[in-house]
Amino acid sequence: MSKLIECIPNFSEGRDQTIINALVDTATSIKGVTLLDHSSDESHNRSVFTLVGTPEGIEEAAFELCKKASELIDMRKHTGEHPRMGATDVIPFVPVKNATAKDCVEISINVAKRISESLGIPTFLYEDSATRPERKNLAKVRKGQFEGMPEKLLEEDWAPDFGERKIHETAGVTAVGGRMPLVAFNVNLNTSDINIANKIAKKIRGSSGGYTYIKGIGVMLEDRNIAQVSMNLVNYEKNAMYVAFETIKFEAKRYGVEILGSEVIGLTPMKALIDCAEYYLQIEDFDYAKQVLENHIL
Amino acid sequence: MSKLIECIPNFSEGRDQTIINALVDTATSIKGVTLLDHSSDESHNRSVFTLVGTPEGIEEAAFELCKKASELIDMRKHTGEHPRMGATDVIPFVPVKNATAKDCVEISINVAKRISESLGIPTFLYEDSATRPERKNLAKVRKGQFEGMPEKLLEEDWAPDFGERKIHETAGVTAVGGRMPLVAFNVNLNTSDINIANKIAKKIRGSSGGYTYIKGIGVMLEDRNIAQVSMNLVNYEKNAMYVAFETIKFEAKRYGVEILGSEVIGLTPMKALIDCAEYYLQIEDFDYAKQVLENHIL
Repeated sequence: MSKLIECIPNFSEGRDQTIINALVDTATSIKGVTLLDHSSDESHNRSVFTLVGTPEGIEEAAFELCKKASELIDMRKHTGEHPRMGATDVIPFVPVKNATAKDCVEISINVAKRISESLGIPTFLYEDSATRPERKNLAKVRKGQFEGMPEKLLEEDWAPDFGERKIHETAGVTAVGGRMPLVAFNVNLNTSDINIANKIAKKIRGSSGGYTYIKGIGVMLEDRNIAQVSMNLVNYEKNAMYVAFETIKFEAKRYGVEILGSEVIGLTPMKALIDCAEYYLQIEDFDYAKQVLENHIL
Repeated sequence: MSKLIECIPNFSEGRDQTIINALVDTATSIKGVTLLDHSSDESHNRSVFTLVGTPEGIEEAAFELCKKASELIDMRKHTGEHPRMGATDVIPFVPVKNATAKDCVEISINVAKRISESLGIPTFLYEDSATRPERKNLAKVRKGQFEGMPEKLLEEDWAPDFGERKIHETAGVTAVGGRMPLVAFNVNLNTSDINIANKIAKKIRGSSGGYTYIKGIGVMLEDRNIAQVSMNLVNYEKNAMYVAFETIKFEAKRYGVEILGSEVIGLTPMKALIDCAEYYLQIEDFDYAKQVLENHIL
């Protein structure tokens, strides 16, 4: 069974179509890799690519894209709303099929090493690949952004994992890491009181003492005049979608509030959903790998 | 997006390993087709193959397998518990990916025609491909079995869809048809009273006035001393798994009985399970084709 890995590199260019096209050309030229999607945001001035491929192919694609971006993007001229520190800002690798989190960590280390050695761009390992706890969170690694990086790299705790304590003049610094696929899952409440959504988010998220792998905030859906608990499930195998849903349901009860519905944003791995079917239908001894037809034809 | 079709031919040989191997060799020699699984039952004296492939590949594989079976299997000498009427007894085609029920009906017609013209085996179209209502049900088509077929083909209503009113001397008659993937779904009750399972099965199955696309009977699980509603969902898009589950739950209540758990037998298409996650998590506007990651990499 061949392994499939997803890679979602983020580039600090969302406006210049010539540069974006050059990156698309690079992505589609690598053997063993498919470009599933790419989207660019002008106000963020940022593009996100979604690729899937073999471990060898995806490693090659990540490197070649980072190389191309370093040739075409000059961070000294970059402006945009989204925090960023490099031409290729971040390169996450995600296991998709017959692959593990460990495979993705290995790939991320290979790529981070190669980028620093061949391109002279210092790299940080983050998320599952992080070499220290404080480097797990991308936001902490990126703090200071491109402009603050020259100084940050000289701080005692912030030597890069690979490369010198000196940014690439135009391409800055890149973060590389393995992580689980993320499920963006929002639950709508039949209340217009955002405080209730905020209180429930606080109960559910790891950072406030809730589930370790759930991030969450309260959000107001102005057009529908309802409050929402907006979540990222960063490890749906540890904290499943139904766990989030049922917990929100019983927490909401305290306020006499009920769940109106939910939404899933973007792509979700089928296992995150099938795990929920297994729970609600009380299926005994379900063998996901063997019993889901699609697992035999991927 | 390329179409993927599943084909599950049933052969009237489950004992002679030389013949079974020859069929496996044929199945694995066809371009554009993968043999996912094959299993043989000695008491049934029958083998079931599961193949998946492109429309062209699967058509070719079905024909070549039927041809090989007609060369190697002599129905005049066949004994076994399972009803059967031909060396290749039945060839169902099932849509798996980017394909519709209509695609499978078309393929089944092509194959049925080719089998009768090239091999001299009369063929019946059944299930979604049936040319008359009484030919939908395979059991009705096969009634009389191999031994009774010479006479049956001469009856007014039973001229084959393709070929003459005369069986192939050694290979008999073959049924070919398109159908939806089948979900074998059993729900266990916390009672040892099989009458309750039977009564619930009667409420739920189409043949007794329940859901059109659900077949069901009560079964006793002797080792656990519990009764079970054993079902085949023959169209999970029309009658979903959660519909069966929730209906059994409220019917069981009448007897003070509850659901203990459930089981899924064999392969299930991921959509049958994901539809349930969508229901229970109350996901609004879920776009199955776009939002399930695996749909982009199949």
